[in-house]
Amino acid sequence: MIQTEVRSWDRQRTARHERLGRAASLAKGKQVQASDATALLEALLQPGDRVCLEGDNQKQADLLARALAAADPARVHDLHIVQSGIVLPEHLEIFERGIARKLDFSYSGPQGASIARALNNGRIELGAIHTYIELFARYYMDLTPHVALIAAVQADAQGNLYTGPNTEDTPTIVEATAFKSGIVVAQVNRIVDRLPRVDIPGDQVDFIIEADRPFYVEPLFTRDPASITETQILMAMMAIKGIYAEYGVKRLNHGIGFGTAAIELLLPTFAERLGLKGKIATHWALNPHPTLIPAIESGWVEQIHCFGSEVGMDAYMAARPDIYFTGRDGTLRSNRMMCQNAGLYACDMFIGSTLQIDLDGNSSTVTPDRIAGFGGAPNMGADAHGRRHASDSWLKAGREASDGNIAMTRGRKLVVQIVETFGAGMAPTFVERLDSVALAEKLQLELVPVMIYGDDVTHIVTEEGIANLLLCRTREEREQAIRGVAGYTEVGRGRDRAVVQKLRERRVIRRPEDLGLNPLDATRHLLAARSIRDLVGWSKDLYRPPSKFRNW
Amino acid sequence: MIQTEVRSWDRQRTARHERLGRAASLAKGKQVQASDATALLEALLQPGDRVCLEGDNQKQADLLARALAAADPARVHDLHIVQSGIVLPEHLEIFERGIARKLDFSYSGPQGASIARALNNGRIELGAIHTYIELFARYYMDLTPHVALIAAVQADAQGNLYTGPNTEDTPTIVEATAFKSGIVVAQVNRIVDRLPRVDIPGDQVDFIIEADRPFYVEPLFTRDPASITETQILMAMMAIKGIYAEYGVKRLNHGIGFGTAAIELLLPTFAERLGLKGKIATHWALNPHPTLIPAIESGWVEQIHCFGSEVGMDAYMAARPDIYFTGRDGTLRSNRMMCQNAGLYACDMFIGSTLQIDLDGNSSTVTPDRIAGFGGAPNMGADAHGRRHASDSWLKAGREASDGNIAMTRGRKLVVQIVETFGAGMAPTFVERLDSVALAEKLQLELVPVMIYGDDVTHIVTEEGIANLLLCRTREEREQAIRGVAGYTEVGRGRDRAVVQKLRERRVIRRPEDLGLNPLDATRHLLAARSIRDLVGWSKDLYRPPSKFRNW
Repeated sequence: MIQTEVRSWDRQRTARHERLGRAASLAKGKQVQASDATALLEALLQPGDRVCLEGDNQKQADLLARALAAADPARVHDLHIVQSGIVLPEHLEIFERGIARKLDFSYSGPQGASIARALNNGRIELGAIHTYIELFARYYMDLTPHVALIAAVQADAQGNLYTGPNTEDTPTIVEATAFKSGIVVAQVNRIVDRLPRVDIPGDQVDFIIEADRPFYVEPLFTRDPASITETQILMAMMAIKGIYAEYGVKRLNHGIGFGTAAIELLLPTFAERLGLKGKIATHWALNPHPTLIPAIESGWVEQIHCFGSEVGMDAYMAARPDIYFTGRDGTLRSNRMMCQNAGLYACDMFIGSTLQIDLDGNSSTVTPDRIAGFGGAPNMGADAHGRRHASDSWLKAGREASDGNIAMTRGRKLVVQIVETFGAGMAPTFVERLDSVALAEKLQLELVPVMIYGDDVTHIVTEEGIANLLLCRTREEREQAIRGVAGYTEVGRGRDRAVVQKLRERRVIRRPEDLGLNPLDATRHLLAARSIRDLVGWSKDLYRPPSKFRNW
Repeated sequence: MIQTEVRSWDRQRTARHERLGRAASLAKGKQVQASDATALLEALLQPGDRVCLEGDNQKQADLLARALAAADPARVHDLHIVQSGIVLPEHLEIFERGIARKLDFSYSGPQGASIARALNNGRIELGAIHTYIELFARYYMDLTPHVALIAAVQADAQGNLYTGPNTEDTPTIVEATAFKSGIVVAQVNRIVDRLPRVDIPGDQVDFIIEADRPFYVEPLFTRDPASITETQILMAMMAIKGIYAEYGVKRLNHGIGFGTAAIELLLPTFAERLGLKGKIATHWALNPHPTLIPAIESGWVEQIHCFGSEVGMDAYMAARPDIYFTGRDGTLRSNRMMCQNAGLYACDMFIGSTLQIDLDGNSSTVTPDRIAGFGGAPNMGADAHGRRHASDSWLKAGREASDGNIAMTRGRKLVVQIVETFGAGMAPTFVERLDSVALAEKLQLELVPVMIYGDDVTHIVTEEGIANLLLCRTREEREQAIRGVAGYTEVGRGRDRAVVQKLRERRVIRRPEDLGLNPLDATRHLLAARSIRDLVGWSKDLYRPPSKFRNW
């Protein structure tokens, strides 16, 4: 037998106890004063630590972000940040001040430009940009946090946490950290004697800090029906009649955008008249979109599981426990890990919008100077090769894509891009080359940031029609199918009219009239709600929109 | 505005309270006597309920399975069973007795033949066969359990649960059930005053039953090194030198089998001499394979996250917290959902064996009369199109598969099948047509049960050599590459010798001698452990194999 090394096997646990020892004087039990938060982090953290500072596209551990950004870089430096979202100014400040050096993340909304700058000037050493569950997966593999700084609604003295409707990433982060001898610090809105429910057991939590104000939540999934255009309504009608109805899509995810909001608001009107109730859109992996309220109230929706919550929706969801997942306390339980898995493996369709689409159908939300990150779309918008259960819509998509090998029928997930041919500022959506290619060159990224690869996209919906890429048999056909719905963009004008005509005859391309739709019927009267106020009415005043969405 | 239906929105919660009311007389607090288990289930369950009776390839809620199988079919009937494993005789008995009718599941080890018979005689109405996380995903979408019957090690009076090393599926099942107004019943080995740690908060658990004996766990991942053949050792040498080393694979999953066990036992010997320590196989998503002990003890392994535990391994893992995920109490925390995600999104390689491979590289573990189910392999053995982070091995595989579109470099997961050309009973592994095709016809399944589709397979390793399918450019090339390593099977003898020779020149096929390996060197002396007893020695007596693996 080979001689084994002499080695200790509990170095992580020893390090944990040393960290706890350094921080002991700052805590009473598990409680630390908010004013001592920076001192706590300085005591706990060691250079090179992997740190997850909880933040995604919604909830933010903002007190802890401020505390970390205020740390002394002589004591806390070269951290490796591994977290879903780079969203708050403090998330960048941590890099600017040298407290952190390396970054692995998923999503950056408002900070996309700052991240690109920080990469450019060497302030950030980029690991990779991930999808949410890809980063979560690495928490259990090679990016396990040494320290997790998380946010919850309430804690009790034992450190049990109530994360409330915005549970989101918390259980996934805490499990990876706590069970690998890491340290978990929670900011909470309030410390109470008795929690309404326990989302995180106290023995996984080391420190709790009562914050001076509730943790920040961004209302990212609210779209005001007042801003939905008739073009978007036409596209929504085409999607419902040409895709939802044709494939009988029952289990789905909607990305965020006015196109999908329009679809949600047409379910109780246009789709109802088509007799589709109960036949489409019954089960959802979805953030709590306020624009789905009319469909829920009209009895369209069986069940919704949520990645996170949405500002203003909590009371409505608590009053609809047959639809949403709620706890014994009555409030929503969200969970991004579970919901992303539902989106990957249990949904038959993902539909969302994007900024750019190239001739292969690759899409990107990157602009020349911004790294937006991926969030969840690459996961939801991917055909899961590990899926083994059938559904009618999945099989139909698979048959359309099939090369005729009948013995080996396989299904396909429907991955739909719904876009206007020209986006904000009249920038063309369809391009020969994604801006992300140039960005990748400039920043020397290993991979071009592509949101969804063309080979996973099955349909593109624009105001000109639907391109069904499943029915394309060659790369050239795909290109012409894309050009054929690209309108008056340069890509659209570069179409081969004869080929596009043939594709239309083969129903690869379908115009509104091919679907029996008259664009003149696409009016705002079709929307079940035409304003935020209408949504509040539908909700019987249970939906309480944030003030920026109120004009009454 | 459209008139909304008059509707109550808490029917599920009302039903829950009615169920609890019917069961109230059987419980003291949350505690129910084991002798009342059947009465409890009869009180709780309603015809048509979706029920998850916890059981996977390892742990089993066996007391609750017996209790359900003993229920009165006049009272409890037409259940829809939604659970990972159909493993115990009682799982089938439930269908034979008409207590359950419909089945959605993932894995059936020993019961594969019985399931096929029950499908055939109409006793089981099959929903679908899933991978584990695909079924978990559906718990949050359209297969949410009304009642979950689970197993834990300990409970306290409040219903908090310690699931111990075999946490496995429990948190995923409980979350889906408890947060959708379902009922959770836990059998526990012991009710105690104070738990070593809390894995499931008590407010998610309705009833606890102390069982007369610990829940059953199958030692599924133990392979006796004494049974490893020199052929398997040769294949392991090829895999290490021709794949692990060439791609620098650090993050990986091993399926179960003697081929992968041989690889594990060659790391501290053969691979060490190749200078590969620290360069390959450092981070794992893996069940606790005893055959990995020598590599761990030799300092090869940085970290392992586990789907579940393994009989006999608990004390060893508790003593190696730097390697394994353990709780504050010191014992392993496994989690199948998290580990399957790690396998999908954070691993660069999956390697496993199979029973049959066809000319397209599709594989199956189905035999003519058995439905084995899928377990986790289709998920682990799938290229994740949602992955957006790079690694050297992933990029190298992607480059090899690339069609030369450099602007859009994409990586590929390595998916390796390691098989002998002839399996048990000299049945050929390589076949023109999978037995599962005939089975699907016979049972009128919607899909042919395919474990891993050929388009996801990157390498096939046999005793004749390695076929690198990434380098094949046409379907014909793939077929000849497969035939070229298929030995003396009919498929192998059907090769086109000239084409195979050219594939070898292009390094698509590599023989042992092409890798600088002499088959005569493949002896059992290379194994770091040659018996279970050796493994116990390596573990410093911490590994305690079950008696069926002991011969001393």
